[in-house]
Amino acid sequence: MRIAVISGPNLNLLGLREPDIYGSDTLDQIEKRLQGVAAELGVHLDTFQSNGEGGLIDYIQESAQRIDGFLINAGGLTHTSVSLRDALVAVGRPFVEVHLSNPAAREPFRHVSLLTDRALGVVTGFGAESYVLGLRGLVARLNASDLPRGS
Amino acid sequence: MRIAVISGPNLNLLGLREPDIYGSDTLDQIEKRLQGVAAELGVHLDTFQSNGEGGLIDYIQESAQRIDGFLINAGGLTHTSVSLRDALVAVGRPFVEVHLSNPAAREPFRHVSLLTDRALGVVTGFGAESYVLGLRGLVARLNASDLPRGS
Amino acid sequence: MRIAVISGPNLNLLGLREPDIYGSDTLDQIEKRLQGVAAELGVHLDTFQSNGEGGLIDYIQESAQRIDGFLINAGGLTHTSVSLRDALVAVGRPFVEVHLSNPAAREPFRHVSLLTDRALGVVTGFGAESYVLGLRGLVARLNASDLPRGS
Amino acid sequence: MRIAVISGPNLNLLGLREPDIYGSDTLDQIEKRLQGVAAELGVHLDTFQSNGEGGLIDYIQESAQRIDGFLINAGGLTHTSVSLRDALVAVGRPFVEVHLSNPAAREPFRHVSLLTDRALGVVTGFGAESYVLGLRGLVARLNASDLPRGS
Amino acid sequence: MRIAVISGPNLNLLGLREPDIYGSDTLDQIEKRLQGVAAELGVHLDTFQSNGEGGLIDYIQESAQRIDGFLINAGGLTHTSVSLRDALVAVGRPFVEVHLSNPAAREPFRHVSLLTDRALGVVTGFGAESYVLGLRGLVARLNASDLPRGS
Amino acid sequence: MRIAVISGPNLNLLGLREPDIYGSDTLDQIEKRLQGVAAELGVHLDTFQSNGEGGLIDYIQESAQRIDGFLINAGGLTHTSVSLRDALVAVGRPFVEVHLSNPAAREPFRHVSLLTDRALGVVTGFGAESYVLGLRGLVARLNASDLPRGS
Amino acid sequence: MRIAVISGPNLNLLGLREPDIYGSDTLDQIEKRLQGVAAELGVHLDTFQSNGEGGLIDYIQESAQRIDGFLINAGGLTHTSVSLRDALVAVGRPFVEVHLSNPAAREPFRHVSLLTDRALGVVTGFGAESYVLGLRGLVARLNASDLPRGS
Amino acid sequence: MRIAVISGPNLNLLGLREPDIYGSDTLDQIEKRLQGVAAELGVHLDTFQSNGEGGLIDYIQESAQRIDGFLINAGGLTHTSVSLRDALVAVGRPFVEVHLSNPAAREPFRHVSLLTDRALGVVTGFGAESYVLGLRGLVARLNASDLPRGS
Amino acid sequence: MRIAVISGPNLNLLGLREPDIYGSDTLDQIEKRLQGVAAELGVHLDTFQSNGEGGLIDYIQESAQRIDGFLINAGGLTHTSVSLRDALVAVGRPFVEVHLSNPAAREPFRHVSLLTDRALGVVTGFGAESYVLGLRGLVARLNASDLPRGS
Amino acid sequence: MRIAVISGPNLNLLGLREPDIYGSDTLDQIEKRLQGVAAELGVHLDTFQSNGEGGLIDYIQESAQRIDGFLINAGGLTHTSVSLRDALVAVGRPFVEVHLSNPAAREPFRHVSLLTDRALGVVTGFGAESYVLGLRGLVARLNASDLPRGS
Amino acid sequence: MRIAVISGPNLNLLGLREPDIYGSDTLDQIEKRLQGVAAELGVHLDTFQSNGEGGLIDYIQESAQRIDGFLINAGGLTHTSVSLRDALVAVGRPFVEVHLSNPAAREPFRHVSLLTDRALGVVTGFGAESYVLGLRGLVARLNASDLPRGS
Amino acid sequence: MRIAVISGPNLNLLGLREPDIYGSDTLDQIEKRLQGVAAELGVHLDTFQSNGEGGLIDYIQESAQRIDGFLINAGGLTHTSVSLRDALVAVGRPFVEVHLSNPAAREPFRHVSLLTDRALGVVTGFGAESYVLGLRGLVARLNASDLPRGS
Repeated sequence: MRIAVISGPNLNLLGLREPDIYGSDTLDQIEKRLQGVAAELGVHLDTFQSNGEGGLIDYIQESAQRIDGFLINAGGLTHTSVSLRDALVAVGRPFVEVHLSNPAAREPFRHVSLLTDRALGVVTGFGAESYVLGLRGLVARLNASDLPRGS
Repeated sequence: MRIAVISGPNLNLLGLREPDIYGSDTLDQIEKRLQGVAAELGVHLDTFQSNGEGGLIDYIQESAQRIDGFLINAGGLTHTSVSLRDALVAVGRPFVEVHLSNPAAREPFRHVSLLTDRALGVVTGFGAESYVLGLRGLVARLNASDLPRGS
Repeated sequence: MRIAVISGPNLNLLGLREPDIYGSDTLDQIEKRLQGVAAELGVHLDTFQSNGEGGLIDYIQESAQRIDGFLINAGGLTHTSVSLRDALVAVGRPFVEVHLSNPAAREPFRHVSLLTDRALGVVTGFGAESYVLGLRGLVARLNASDLPRGS
Repeated sequence: MRIAVISGPNLNLLGLREPDIYGSDTLDQIEKRLQGVAAELGVHLDTFQSNGEGGLIDYIQESAQRIDGFLINAGGLTHTSVSLRDALVAVGRPFVEVHLSNPAAREPFRHVSLLTDRALGVVTGFGAESYVLGLRGLVARLNASDLPRGS
Repeated sequence: MRIAVISGPNLNLLGLREPDIYGSDTLDQIEKRLQGVAAELGVHLDTFQSNGEGGLIDYIQESAQRIDGFLINAGGLTHTSVSLRDALVAVGRPFVEVHLSNPAAREPFRHVSLLTDRALGVVTGFGAESYVLGLRGLVARLNASDLPRGS
Repeated sequence: MRIAVISGPNLNLLGLREPDIYGSDTLDQIEKRLQGVAAELGVHLDTFQSNGEGGLIDYIQESAQRIDGFLINAGGLTHTSVSLRDALVAVGRPFVEVHLSNPAAREPFRHVSLLTDRALGVVTGFGAESYVLGLRGLVARLNASDLPRGS
Repeated sequence: MRIAVISGPNLNLLGLREPDIYGSDTLDQIEKRLQGVAAELGVHLDTFQSNGEGGLIDYIQESAQRIDGFLINAGGLTHTSVSLRDALVAVGRPFVEVHLSNPAAREPFRHVSLLTDRALGVVTGFGAESYVLGLRGLVARLNASDLPRGS
Repeated sequence: MRIAVISGPNLNLLGLREPDIYGSDTLDQIEKRLQGVAAELGVHLDTFQSNGEGGLIDYIQESAQRIDGFLINAGGLTHTSVSLRDALVAVGRPFVEVHLSNPAAREPFRHVSLLTDRALGVVTGFGAESYVLGLRGLVARLNASDLPRGS
Repeated sequence: MRIAVISGPNLNLLGLREPDIYGSDTLDQIEKRLQGVAAELGVHLDTFQSNGEGGLIDYIQESAQRIDGFLINAGGLTHTSVSLRDALVAVGRPFVEVHLSNPAAREPFRHVSLLTDRALGVVTGFGAESYVLGLRGLVARLNASDLPRGS
Repeated sequence: MRIAVISGPNLNLLGLREPDIYGSDTLDQIEKRLQGVAAELGVHLDTFQSNGEGGLIDYIQESAQRIDGFLINAGGLTHTSVSLRDALVAVGRPFVEVHLSNPAAREPFRHVSLLTDRALGVVTGFGAESYVLGLRGLVARLNASDLPRGS
Repeated sequence: MRIAVISGPNLNLLGLREPDIYGSDTLDQIEKRLQGVAAELGVHLDTFQSNGEGGLIDYIQESAQRIDGFLINAGGLTHTSVSLRDALVAVGRPFVEVHLSNPAAREPFRHVSLLTDRALGVVTGFGAESYVLGLRGLVARLNASDLPRGS
Repeated sequence: MRIAVISGPNLNLLGLREPDIYGSDTLDQIEKRLQGVAAELGVHLDTFQSNGEGGLIDYIQESAQRIDGFLINAGGLTHTSVSLRDALVAVGRPFVEVHLSNPAAREPFRHVSLLTDRALGVVTGFGAESYVLGLRGLVARLNASDLPRGS
């Protein structure tokens, strides 16, 4: 089983950016920790980060053939990108949406996600732990025999 | 460390009710599985279910003295009960909100939660696994030294 | 065939309360009249009234095993209770919604019902007669061979 | 006592049109059945159908002198015709609104009726039975001594 | 100079219908009074009433060639008919909108008119006098040399 | 009979200000013309203009004792002043609202009037002629025996 | 194959009415040109125009038996007629919606169509060419083997 | 004269709960202070608190026979309970609504009260003093000869 | 301690204006009664009334230096004046908002106050008694040691 | 004459992605078919696809000098990109908007297009045929002598 | 060239009022600094402040004859005064809108300005520097030969 | 001190694009003029333009280390990009927002900016002069000792 972990705009600044909101772990540290959990769960992990909507869509399209599911934190694009949603739905792979902070406790324009209603599951508000829990949840669902693939 | 797991209206029907949405596990089975995870994590677990808003608030008030955090699936009250929110905030204990299904993929009146903006974190859409991931996340946050208690 | 007639908050005040809006029949008188109609139609009738959302949900859950359909006037909970709706849908029994008055002719917050889109049918505005017509309609639908049970 | 049964646009297609929504009875069959119920109740029945708003208003105006109440299924005009509402209110006869399907379970533009707040009562969702129940309710109200005529 | 006075649905009931709102003059009496004012002003008057949107549009189209302006009370179609508006704009004749009652003091759905923003002027709330004032205003504007015809 | 003609903010600029919208008559010329019509109708006319909400309210209060009705063009305050509305209602004199232009054809914030639903009648869009028609309508209504004074 | 071309209110004024918006072709000229395209495509063409909603619905109902699809420009009824939509859906024939102008560039009340979500396809903004393109698209879809008839 | 003082969900936590918002007085201390004021005013006082909507409605119904008015702080139910409002209106006793904090300065969902438009008066924002002022106001109004009982 | 009692537009008409809404006390009588209560409480009272927003702001600015708090009934400006709110906040003195009637039971535009969220407390619906209760509440809060001055 | 055919995000997946919505033609096949139609019409065709908003804008800017019009399917950016709209308007070339599916029959966020009100025309819902019809319409309009270039 | 600098309600409190929002400069100091900049730019400067809408409109009307443009900070009236906007538009002089703070970062009712869409330009958020920058911008635009006067 | 001047999508077309809205200066000419003003103010200036959201975010992230503030015209992304806002906030440098035109006078979707509430200040509507004024304002604020860095 192979999972792609996708991080959207500004997540390369993690650890530097507003630590009271996002915590002090860098994206590199989070991805290392995820590799450890993945090893424990027996799955392979690809990781990708980009600040551009187009680059993220390109990656989703080309990686979809070789992976079984996505773990995605789309950053600010969560709330604005119909095209990112379209890409995830189009390639027919289940995905889990994660956020470090709790969007519902922030500005109103963060209260709506264009991804959630097509996601397998969502984890928010646990800082870097959101990635870990999301990965566990995604793998658990992929291992379940009755998974509605591509929903 | 002690955690209270609270389930709101109709969750006593789990396993019987709309299995295509909520899965086939009963609440009893889920709570047993949670006890296993709790043992692994070294925490005590209290569980409570009620179909009444008043009973849930009574329980939150009286249990708050002896527990360190709540794991709560408020069912339909998630979207309608200011009083439940008030109770959780009033007793000053962190809480994690979980849902078996993905509310964002259902009727519009389920798209708003009166609890989320005060929750430590949220896990939705993984079926019974949402409870497990939520418990792991809550304990991780309680073990972190910089936890903003009562936020 | 067995039908449960459920009355929500304040309907125990019928006959006393705002007779210009609700008429002068007491709930007891209405239920007696319904028993007469039920006898005529050859069905058994259980009746229940509570001022509490939790008590109503408890009753719906425990009575569902032995009845074939619900006739419900949820009173003020009609407009506010997602949990009551969830209970009716969860137990998988058809239900008919009735109101004594015409909610559309009253305050704006009474113009939306959280039950209607899942109801088999609705009868409003005929005073106590709404219960009678609703019972007739429910039994007619239950006797029809093509009834979509649990819709 | 004399009642006019009015059916609006496309109801002449009943039995042909979307039988999963509207049932397989033709309007002719429904009106025959209503005549039977009317005979049982001792009232006379006029029936009228038109696809045009103007024709319906003409009929309401000219029939009002000789009838005691209307039973009306205004079809799609329910949601769009202020003029039809004006006609019903202007002629000062009580009316009951019926629908075969449950508008609240269909498209959002069917969730608002321009007639309801001036209707004596409403019956929806019972298929052809909605007409029968509506007729019974209307006659019961007309026979009641305290009927607020013209409300 | 020739003016067409157009009255929409239910205005043929004037004098009979809700006299506390619309007054006790019949449409015939109002038109007679208007003929008197027209004679005083030296203009010819055509009058037309219909309960149907289509008939009103037909009349507007065919009368437009021979008249210089419209005085129109569109009744309930004021709030719902884009097609009537289109007809008035299409034929390129100025029109004045009148209402007997004050729509702003009635139901919310009467607070929006689809005609007003293309009207030369509007007169509301004076009962039958609204027609008279509207006719005076229309003729005054048509006699003014700088009239923006067809606006 | 005595009428007070009240003009609100910026109407002292009439004839100078945006003549394509408001026409080329000055307020002084309009008031002279109104005096002529008043003489013809046998009524006395007081006139008042102010750019200040407070001054307008003061005038309404002190003039109310000696006049029988108001003819008012409240200018921009039409859309923003609850206090002006309160003054007109408080002193218990009928009033007619006039506008030179057609507010419905202008910016959205001009589409709502805080005065209209309490006005006896409204005349808009005829330029200076709106004042004349409004005066005629007000006097006609005051002369009618069944005038609901103070409504 | 037989197609019915339906034109709604005011389209009989084409060529006369607001040529800067709708172009200078008359409806007669457009229909002649459509007959030419139909001949080229090997299909028969019926044409119908009415200013009345009722007449259009009558025509849709009676023509549906002998035609394979509709090409419809509903004019102002596009935005207001639930009944017209109901008729098109009820008779179970695919339809294509066309407009000469671009409704999205006009008044807000033209931005919503009650037909579009049930149409096979939509063509707007090309003047008379919209009809031609719509006819070509409709025939192409009807000739495709996998056409979802009646959707 | 006898007054019932009713406190809704979570008010039993007063003094413990968020003292910066609600003050440090316990509900017991507030009720003792109210008893003192009641003695001074010569009225009897019953007090009741419950976390459940149903229990509050039961109490309102059964106490209504023996009391002259209610002083109520409905807590979070203020914003969500149509049934509580119905109970207060149904029993026909005047009531005064009080809040310790100022709801208008808090979350948007606290800006609407379902009780206020039927209350005799409202007092908010004075901490425990709100209860005292509300009691004084209620007694003053009950002592006034022109009190519209049951409004 | 010194308090300024401020009354906005039209409150000089009290006792004359709509007595069924506002009671029969004149502003002069209310202020006399307030002076009595002030004497009892040992505070000085300044009073001011104006129909103009500018005059009220001028008074707030110049009186602020010598007073400890405001008791204000802003009349119609309550719902429309950002500038009045700005003045009260700018001078840094606590204020209590009072209304004679219950704005929530009146027109929708009275349901929003631009002052409330910055007020120390609010009293509405008790007629002239609202002023008395508001004064008592203001003095109580000013005497409390922990008063957040200027909040 | 030269036309640029632009396809936005995820359209490179055509034929693979959700064939029940978008059909089974690949973008390559569609472009080949368009080249055939272009040859028939005697125009040159450039084609471009990108998943990135920036790349699409770059292409519009640099191609605008050498082409006469755009045929554009902006995919998900249709609903979210003000910048794409700005680019199309800025370069002053007419454009036609096409969609394979019918956006009005899909999620609400697809019901608004930021391009339509500036488009020459729109074709939706015909699958790959939408491109063909759009190209025919664009060329017809460009060949018409009265084309408002750049509108 | 002559410029009028207008300051609305409460700006006479600058330096005293909420210095963390508005800075510590008094209006007098700001105007002195503006006179220095004006001297540098070779223009004359008139200054005016009032707390009353009426006074501000009077000043705009009477000063308009002798000045070339306005620099205006309308304070709280920015968000509420249609009449002030009307005055600025009516006198036909260009104006620049300035604010010391950033309204978009404050309460929602400050997010809409009734002046902006008619302003030449806007400067917000720089404290007293907003006035200076606004003056420079206004003079630069007035010196530009292609200034659209009065827009 | 070093400032980065950032221009978003389509601003490379300045001088070519809609000169009646944006003026005839090219971006190159504006940047040259800004360099002159920067030299006068003693600050260094970096400039950057891109049509892509991703590229702009990349630049903001990498330039933030070496600059003291941003002067940004985000073009169409102003209204749609949460990610751009996140980037500016994340790097902790103050920024000033400028626009050549006045967005409030254009389409409704330009009336909301996702940047403004986090900006130090805003300058709009002065054409190329907006950049100059914005630069002056930014430098003035950076030179002030009490600048709230990173706000």
